[in-house]
Formats: sequence, structure tokens, C-alpha cells
Amino acid sequence: MNFLSDTTAPAHPALLEAIAAANAGFAASYGADDVSVRVEARLKEIFETDLKVLFAVSGTASNALALSVLCPSHGAILCHDEAHIHRDERGAPEFFTGGGKLIPLHGDHAKISLDALDSALGEIPEGFVHTSPVRVLSLSNLSESGSAYSPAEIAERAGRTRERPAFVHMDGARFSNALVTLGCSPAELTWKAGVDALCFGATKNGALGAEAVILFPSVMDRFEELQARQKRAGHMAPKMRFLAAQFEAWLSGDLWLDLARTANGHARRLAEGLAALPGVTILHPVDGNEVFARLPERLAERLRGGGARFYQWPDGSARFVTSWCTGDAEITGLLETAS
Amino acid sequence: MNFLSDTTAPAHPALLEAIAAANAGFAASYGADDVSVRVEARLKEIFETDLKVLFAVSGTASNALALSVLCPSHGAILCHDEAHIHRDERGAPEFFTGGGKLIPLHGDHAKISLDALDSALGEIPEGFVHTSPVRVLSLSNLSESGSAYSPAEIAERAGRTRERPAFVHMDGARFSNALVTLGCSPAELTWKAGVDALCFGATKNGALGAEAVILFPSVMDRFEELQARQKRAGHMAPKMRFLAAQFEAWLSGDLWLDLARTANGHARRLAEGLAALPGVTILHPVDGNEVFARLPERLAERLRGGGARFYQWPDGSARFVTSWCTGDAEITGLLETAS
Amino acid sequence: MNFLSDTTAPAHPALLEAIAAANAGFAASYGADDVSVRVEARLKEIFETDLKVLFAVSGTASNALALSVLCPSHGAILCHDEAHIHRDERGAPEFFTGGGKLIPLHGDHAKISLDALDSALGEIPEGFVHTSPVRVLSLSNLSESGSAYSPAEIAERAGRTRERPAFVHMDGARFSNALVTLGCSPAELTWKAGVDALCFGATKNGALGAEAVILFPSVMDRFEELQARQKRAGHMAPKMRFLAAQFEAWLSGDLWLDLARTANGHARRLAEGLAALPGVTILHPVDGNEVFARLPERLAERLRGGGARFYQWPDGSARFVTSWCTGDAEITGLLETAS
Amino acid sequence: MNFLSDTTAPAHPALLEAIAAANAGFAASYGADDVSVRVEARLKEIFETDLKVLFAVSGTASNALALSVLCPSHGAILCHDEAHIHRDERGAPEFFTGGGKLIPLHGDHAKISLDALDSALGEIPEGFVHTSPVRVLSLSNLSESGSAYSPAEIAERAGRTRERPAFVHMDGARFSNALVTLGCSPAELTWKAGVDALCFGATKNGALGAEAVILFPSVMDRFEELQARQKRAGHMAPKMRFLAAQFEAWLSGDLWLDLARTANGHARRLAEGLAALPGVTILHPVDGNEVFARLPERLAERLRGGGARFYQWPDGSARFVTSWCTGDAEITGLLETAS
Repeated sequence: MNFLSDTTAPAHPALLEAIAAANAGFAASYGADDVSVRVEARLKEIFETDLKVLFAVSGTASNALALSVLCPSHGAILCHDEAHIHRDERGAPEFFTGGGKLIPLHGDHAKISLDALDSALGEIPEGFVHTSPVRVLSLSNLSESGSAYSPAEIAERAGRTRERPAFVHMDGARFSNALVTLGCSPAELTWKAGVDALCFGATKNGALGAEAVILFPSVMDRFEELQARQKRAGHMAPKMRFLAAQFEAWLSGDLWLDLARTANGHARRLAEGLAALPGVTILHPVDGNEVFARLPERLAERLRGGGARFYQWPDGSARFVTSWCTGDAEITGLLETAS
Repeated sequence: MNFLSDTTAPAHPALLEAIAAANAGFAASYGADDVSVRVEARLKEIFETDLKVLFAVSGTASNALALSVLCPSHGAILCHDEAHIHRDERGAPEFFTGGGKLIPLHGDHAKISLDALDSALGEIPEGFVHTSPVRVLSLSNLSESGSAYSPAEIAERAGRTRERPAFVHMDGARFSNALVTLGCSPAELTWKAGVDALCFGATKNGALGAEAVILFPSVMDRFEELQARQKRAGHMAPKMRFLAAQFEAWLSGDLWLDLARTANGHARRLAEGLAALPGVTILHPVDGNEVFARLPERLAERLRGGGARFYQWPDGSARFVTSWCTGDAEITGLLETAS
Repeated sequence: MNFLSDTTAPAHPALLEAIAAANAGFAASYGADDVSVRVEARLKEIFETDLKVLFAVSGTASNALALSVLCPSHGAILCHDEAHIHRDERGAPEFFTGGGKLIPLHGDHAKISLDALDSALGEIPEGFVHTSPVRVLSLSNLSESGSAYSPAEIAERAGRTRERPAFVHMDGARFSNALVTLGCSPAELTWKAGVDALCFGATKNGALGAEAVILFPSVMDRFEELQARQKRAGHMAPKMRFLAAQFEAWLSGDLWLDLARTANGHARRLAEGLAALPGVTILHPVDGNEVFARLPERLAERLRGGGARFYQWPDGSARFVTSWCTGDAEITGLLETAS
Repeated sequence: MNFLSDTTAPAHPALLEAIAAANAGFAASYGADDVSVRVEARLKEIFETDLKVLFAVSGTASNALALSVLCPSHGAILCHDEAHIHRDERGAPEFFTGGGKLIPLHGDHAKISLDALDSALGEIPEGFVHTSPVRVLSLSNLSESGSAYSPAEIAERAGRTRERPAFVHMDGARFSNALVTLGCSPAELTWKAGVDALCFGATKNGALGAEAVILFPSVMDRFEELQARQKRAGHMAPKMRFLAAQFEAWLSGDLWLDLARTANGHARRLAEGLAALPGVTILHPVDGNEVFARLPERLAERLRGGGARFYQWPDGSARFVTSWCTGDAEITGLLETAS
């Protein structure tokens, strides 16, 4: 009953097989291999647009790389106060942007509220040399609370920053989980809603370690700079084919969506089961594979005593994360232990 | 009736004379001159302790230099949300620290509240590799709202961060203004209350452009690194004697305190006069040379029409800044125009 | 007949199997897994000392991470003018150190000569605020010309920098190739000769993508900072077990040494064969798996026409790189085409 | 008999008077003052072109600021191996550019030779992701050896880099000294020869501390970024009028040229006198106010014993620097002591 994190889950066997298949013979290094080329073509299909893509081994890397080509060192990035880029990346965005400034904003369910956004935009002038101007709005989808921004919510926020010369970045470490819940298309959830760059994560949904930075047409002219920064950050893996191969298998057919649906289904069942217990509050919409619950202390102890593993969040709540390989029996086991 | 900023005021004649006097003949460059040596000795007297000092031409420079030897690139700096280092220095702290993270906190009168401080310290773990740990607490005295931290308030906040390997930085762009109001000694307002490094500003109080970074004994071992960073930031002026000479004249006798007292007196009189008018609210304690007032719109217009110059603050209030060379007539004139 | 680079070679099957084996069930993320722990223990055996290790996906990353904890932003790194860190990493050392300075030195066979080292140390003062002081000596073993530094050569160079507060970094992207040729122990080639930190590469010798940064006892106190920098550079892979598993298999028994011996043997045979041809000069000692040869133009054309792939180096020579999976037939084929 | 450095010389009285004059009443801060505006107009006259200018207090600052808007963090700067930006600025260019790479080149008299330039351009490819591409050619005029590049020499070097997307930066800490020797116009020595940005120094030629970064039309679109970087580096002095006032007085009439002529005349006389002595070699063309001489050891001792102060250069030679306020008697005294 491991609900600690989707990063503790194993990789899906199809991705391991793809790596083995990619291991046949010599291949061009640093991303010039055939697999990388095929993955880019597949992503264009999925997102229904031209785009540029490169791979990295962690979400921290892909976020920081994307931000570094969107925000100059003397600019500012608006993000939620609980955003991974602000709280959990040890200052990676500041490092990669050469000292860009993060401005944390509030909002329920770890989603930036329109009020907070408007207030920040009102306070931060454009063209005032003393103040870092807004150059990026970063949205996490799923958010850190496991809730999703809908295309309309994204478009509304993107619209507010369009008066500035600002771009919209999406931290999509759990993009697939958000997508299958919202039921929209990948295009609708990104560039059609105003997203310029997407960090598209596979690691938490079945990969060994594979994240993609996708530049949509509005910022594709920055791809050469992105590659330069990837190289100088040590993220241009010599044998890139093994990263690309993971994406190729994951994006083949509907595997990536199926895995997300499985994880999300577990989370919903877990949330429903917990919600039915006395004294339990589900704190945020369960739009993906994460459940945040306020539990009576005795219940939390009973669960832990029964072998359930989960993190206590800084606000005192319990976080349960499901994954593609969570078993039905684990959910059942947890709920039986709880009741 | 210029109340825009103390940075628009001229320099005190004594400082100009000191520069002229320092101009006699050749002198060692880059801070090895006799004047610099004498100023360090004078500062030791004033602060009643051993210390190390270097000079810079702007408060942004002195703050960023000080922070860069207190906070590693992978650490975090706690400051007030309205702090100059967060709002008005175009990301200088992030630049000089190599990507350190600023964590903005709340509190009335631009002073960090104990609640906000405790909450931040509770949320930011120590020894957790994913999160930038707290390495500096930065206090502005005067604050951005013109209010002062008392020695007890400083000590209380410094005490909270002492469980961490964290240092206390004081942005003292208007340190002399706070000091004369509080009536304590320079030592009591700094190292005796837990301050490790002080950015001691003279520019806003009579200098042409002279700021000092003072390292107290607790961090004096970082002075060599501070000099290296001063050099590589282009702040080691070749003819440093002209910066030192300003400090020497300013710290001679009680000139620096007298100038601050004059400015503060103007501000108090201005605040009292405004407060007596219908519809006017003085928003923050007037602990120095700044008055923030909420004015009826017609009153603001009348003042501007009558020749008074002052900034409208982002929160809609009016900021009036007095200086050593504000005339009694200007205060009288403003109040007469107002009533 | 692919002699382009050992980065174009596939991974050894044993490493793929180890990844599959590591994929069973849940595992702690970010390097807290059991495999990572076992690899550290194995490295202590191999290097006969206490040490700390972390993993990265590229040599550029491991070099830059190591250098960033050895050299402050205001320090300098001595390296060979042809060093990978100077020529082929797009400024990664400057980026990771926060603007440290690289000082390129000369010497035959891409090895820093004692004369060049002495001259640089003579020119770069210690304690002079205007000049970046020497903080790191970086040696590449194998060098960029495929030659090896012997333990004595390393010790001699390390000795020269020991008067400074300087550390010795070894770029060991092809460390195993140097080691099997020199016939010394890993300890003799590193910390016993004065090396403080080793970037130990497996990617070019059979891994999918796995590099280790090893801190020897003299700099082990910097490990926590190294981890912080690994995290903020995006190199703390969530599912680190898959990196560790590669090292575990590679270091199991003598696999890593056997693979290097195989690659080196091919290179020696290739060099001997080429050297016997009229007009061919082997330019550097073949101490590992690289052969640099000056070829008559018609010979180069004949080889390319016959299907051999190799790079023309900036100096006009031809570089042939062999690997663990180069076949005897390829060497034979090349030499037959040549003659 | 102080020949240590022109940075040890006092400021010219006219500049002190200008500062006093600028001190009358309130003035807009941060460079929006009237004096700053007038200086920009005067510079347009002098350089016969449109341009943008900002001020700084040190040559290190002005060089690093200029380079930071010309070279991206992933680019490279070609400079002479002895250039101030490489040897004497403690890594400021690396810091300000966010980790740009300096490539030191050789050439007699601290001037980059065409051979060295061609060789570097031949070795450093464009569009190769692993290698920092050439983005700036930096020329020092005067060079570190006191020699000057003529307009033709500049144009020749600038021409070689024009095939790249590269800019030409001139470190003109002693620009006026070079100019009066060459007898050309400021325009001919800069933008007409291909210079995009000039760091124009007054400090060594009569100012208290005033350097100008001048962007010529080819790079004027980067001025807003330059101001942002000036601010975040702490170089936007609040009371900028005191920097501008120095330039206004210095550029008034021919004062700046007269001071340079005076200094140069002293250097020529000194060089001629020394050259006539047995065993003395003048090592570099004396194109400005610096003389580098190889002296018999006994002569050097006699000079020092007689009260002459000068630096021994790293190559063992003696460096004599004259300034606007060097007296005829000092030259006479030195030569009499010598003979």
C-alpha cells in the first residue's frame, strides 16, 4: 500500500522493451537519432501543430530549461505559491534563468486565482527599470493539490498576461492525468488556450525517466537557444535514443492515456472511500492521481499501522498518490484498514 | 515643495568639501587609501565593535553584495513582501547570489510579522534537498513604509532564525533616520540585537553617493570573499578615496545624526499637519523621514496644483519624503496649500 | 565500420538486464534506493577508501557539478586548452560555478605540460583581489588526444597546485580505458596521486547513460552542497535506481575493465595497422580507445568510400574511436580497405 | 615621482567644480536628470552619430555591462590573453554574462594578431551545439601594453568576425590617450571601423570616477536591456547627476583631449629618455601614457632608491604610467636619477 509518490513506481514494461529495441547497433548521439525524430513527428500529431521538442531526465530540468528561454535574467515569473518550481526545485528556475525572479501568488487548490493574478499585474509595472517585469506566467496542470485547470481557466489567465510581452509556461509533470479527466484534446489544453511551452512529463506515469520540453509555434524560434542551454546544463544525454525510446513506446497508441486513466481511477475510488468515513475531508478536487485528505489523527495512525505509506503534507493533511501500477487490492486494502 | 524622494536631494556641502580635500595629490587606489582606513576606525568607534567595511555607490549594490556572502546560491532569503530587495532592485539579490531565492513575507507597516516568520520557518524544512533552506533573514530599517524595528523587535526575529544556520541582514538605506527616532545606540540597533551585516546608507541623508557594507564579527571571516565579489561586480572604484571621504565628513561629529534629525522633524511636522485635516489618514508610524497618507482625492489634486511633488504609492496612498535639506517653508507651504 | 564515437555505441546487455531487474516494485526516489547504496559500497571497495558518490546522465553534467563545489564563482580552473570542459561543454563549467574562469594551458597530447602549469601559477597571484585565483586543476584521463596521465604525472601536477588552496579534478569520461592501459589501481590513479574529485564515466564504455561524481575524503564535506547543486541543476533523477543499476552491473566483477580492455585492444590493433601504411602518422600515444592519425588525403577518401566512418579533427587529423562492441571484423575491414 | 597608475592621480579641478555646480537643489534621480541628457547630446556631437549612453563608476563595471548585452550566456568572447577583462576583473565578464566564455588570444603588444584571430575563428564552429560560438570580439585601445589599434587594424579585425553574428566591443579605459596619438576622429576609431559598443573611460584621465558605456546604432536596440542590467548590478547610482557632471566638464571644449595629450607627452619624453640609457629596452610602442621598459636590475634599484614608484610587470619589465597631473619635474627627476 505505497501511496508515497508516483516517482516511486516502476516503469511500464513496454518502455523497457523499447529501450532494449533501441539498443541495436550504433546510433547518432545527442538527439540526432532516428527515434528522436519519430517522437517529434508523433508529438505533432498528438498536439495537432508544428512544434519543437527536446528531452530531459527530470521535471526540474525540463521546467528550468523552458523557463530559461522564456524569461530573461532581469524578468519575473508569476507562479502559484505552492508551485513545484517555487517550492521543490531548490531554486532551479533562478539558476537557469541567471537570476530571474519568482513571484508567488495565491489561489485555492494550488491554482492561481484571477484576483491574485490581476493584483500582481496591477502592482508590477511594465517599463520601470527598478522592477523585474512579468515575462512568464507558469501554470501547473495538475496543480500541486491535484486539481486541474480547464482550457477556459488557462485561456482566461493567459489572456491577462497577453498585454505584457509575457509567455505562458505549463508544468505538465502530471499533464496526462489532467488531460484524461478534462476530456479535452492536448491542443485544447495547451496552445489553443494560450500555452507557449509545455513541460510534458512521462516519468510519473510509466517512464524510467523521461520529460519533454515542447515549444509551440509562438516560441519555436527559441529552440536553438534551448538546445544550447540543454547542452550547457548537462542535459543533452549522449545516448539520447534511450530517452526518446521511452517516449515512443509511451505515446504509442493510447498507452500514456490508459496509464493515466488507471491511476486517476484509483485516486477517485480512494477519495470516494475516504470521503465516506466520519471526520474525513477531501481538501481539493481529485482531478488526477492525487488525493489530499484531512484525516482524524487516529485514522491516520491506523492506516500507517496497517501498512499504508503516504506523506503528511506541510498543512497537516495526508497526500495519497496513485500510479499506473497501483493495484485494486491496494485501494481495497487501504479502505478496509480505514473503516 | 519636492517630496518625491531623498535621492533627489543635493549632497551636504561638507561632503563636497571633503571630496575636494581628498583630491590633493596621489593616493592608493581600490580602497587602500588613508581615508578608507580612517573611516573603518571611525565606524568601529560608532558601532563599539570590531568590524570590516567596504563602500559602494548604491543601496542596491550594497544589499546585493552583503546578501551574496550570506546566502549560497542554493539558499533562501526571507524578506518582507514590500522590501526594496524584492520589489525595487530588478532581481539584484538573485543575480549576486547566483540564483538564491527570495521568500516574501507579510506584516503590517512593511515589517515582517512574527506570525509570518514562524509560518515560513515552519514550512521551509532544513536539510531537505528539494527546498532552498533559509540562510538569511533580511530586515529593512526603516521599512519601506517608513516605520522602524526596535532593538527588541529585531532581536525577537533574529532569535527565531538562529536555530538555522541563518544570518540577519539589515537594509539600512535609512538607518540613521531609524536610529535617531529610536534613541538607542548603533550597536543596540545592530549586532547586539543579532544583526550580522548592515548596509549603511549615506546617499539618502546627505551624500553624493556612498553606501557602506559593514560585516560585524560574526561574519567578518567573509570579508575577503566580499571584496572579491565587490571587484567582480565592478564596485571596487579605482579612486575609492572619494567614496571614503564622503563617509568621513558625514560621520564627523554628529553630522549624520543631525541631518537625520532634521529630516525626521520635517516628516513629523508634516504628518501632524496632514493628520489634522478632515479625511486624511496617516497609514504607518512615522519613524523616520517618510509619511504615507491616504488623502481625499480633491486634497491630492489641490496639493499637486499648488506645486507639491510626491509619489502615489501602489496602494493608492501618497508618499512624502523629507530630507536634510527640506526647508521649514516647504512644510508650511504644503500644509497651507492643504488647508 | 563505425569509429565516430563511443557515444554512438549501444549499451552492454548486462546493464539492460540490471535496469529490468531494478524495475520490480516500488523504490525510494531521488537516490535513496537500495541500489544506489550498494553502488557506493562497491565504489569504496574499488577505490579502497571512503568516498561519496552521486550519479548524472552526462559527462558535461558530472564535470560541471564537481567543478561547482570545488571552485567558487570568483576563482579559476586550470585545464588543457583542448579539454572537454573548455571546448565541448558550451560553457557548462562557467554556468555551474556561477561565472568561474577557465584558464586554458598548453602541452603535448592534450596533457598539461609542467612548464605551462608552472608558468600559469607564476602569473596568477594568490590574494590579489583583481585576479581570479587558481582553485582547481582539471586533468582529463584519458586526455582529449587519447593519451593517459600516469600516477606519477598526476602527482607531479597536483603537487604544484598544493601550495594554493586548490583542488584537483579528474575528467574520467574514459577513466577505465586509461586505467587498464596503465595497469595501476583505481586508488593509485586518483586520490593517492592527489585527485580530490573524479568524474567517472560509464556511458562511453557500455552504459545507456550513467556518470558518477566521486568525492574523495579530502572534499567529502562538500557532498551536501553537491547534492543541492545536483537537485537545482535538474540532475537528481526521480527514479535514480535506473542510473544506479547501470553502475551496479557495470562494476560487477570485472565487466567495466573487460569492456575497456576490449575497446583498447581494438584501438591498438587499428593504430598498428595504420602506422604500417606509407604516409600515415599516429599523432598521439594510443593509451586507450582512440587513435588520431594523419592520413594521406587519398587514403582518407578510400576509407570513407569503403564505408568507414570517423571524424576529421580540427587539426586535420582523423580520429578513430573504438568501443566495447567494436568487432574484430571492423578493424580487419578498415585495415584491408586501407591497404 | 609616482608612476604607479593613472588611477592614483587626483581628479581635475574642473570636474570637482562641475560636481559642486550640479549640487544645486533637487534633481531627478537614476539618470533622468538634465546633466545626463546634455552629456548624451554632447557625445553624439563628438562621435558624429546617434548613440545611447549610461554611466558607471569603474571600467570593470562598464566592460562587464557592455559585454552582458552583446554576448549571451552560451556564447564566447574573443579577447587578448592579457586583456583587462580576462586578467584583471576577477571574472566580471563571466559573472555579468551569466557564464559566457572568454577565449584568450595571442599577439604582440597585447594586440590580437590576425593569425590568432583567424585561427580561433577556424577552430570555433558556428551552429555546433557543444561549443560556445563567438559572439563578441573585444579590443582594448590602448592595449594592456600601452599600444594602440589604428582604425585600419580595428576594421580588419572587425571584418573577420562579421561573418558570424558577432559584435565588436572596445575597452576604452584609455581611449582618449589612443585617440590623440592616432590623430583620427572618435568616429573613425569606433563605429566607422566596426565597433558596436565602446567603454569610454574618464577615470584614468582626470575624473573622480566616471565611465561611460556607449552603444552605437548597430546595438542601440539593446539599451533597455543594458539599463535593466545596470540597475540589477547596482550601477544605477541614485544621484547620477554627479557622474554625468564629471563627463560634462571633461568633454567641455577639448579638456579631455588636452589632458590625454599632456599625459602622453610625458610618457613619450620618459620613453625617449630611458631608451637612451645603456641596457634599457622599450618593449612596446608608446602610443599613450604607458611605458614598458626592460631595465638593468641596478638601474631599477637606483630609480626606486631615488624615490620613483612604478610596478614590476609579471614579465619582469617595469611599467611607468603618466597622467594629466604628472609634472615635467617628475620626468626630469626620473631621468636624472636614471642617468
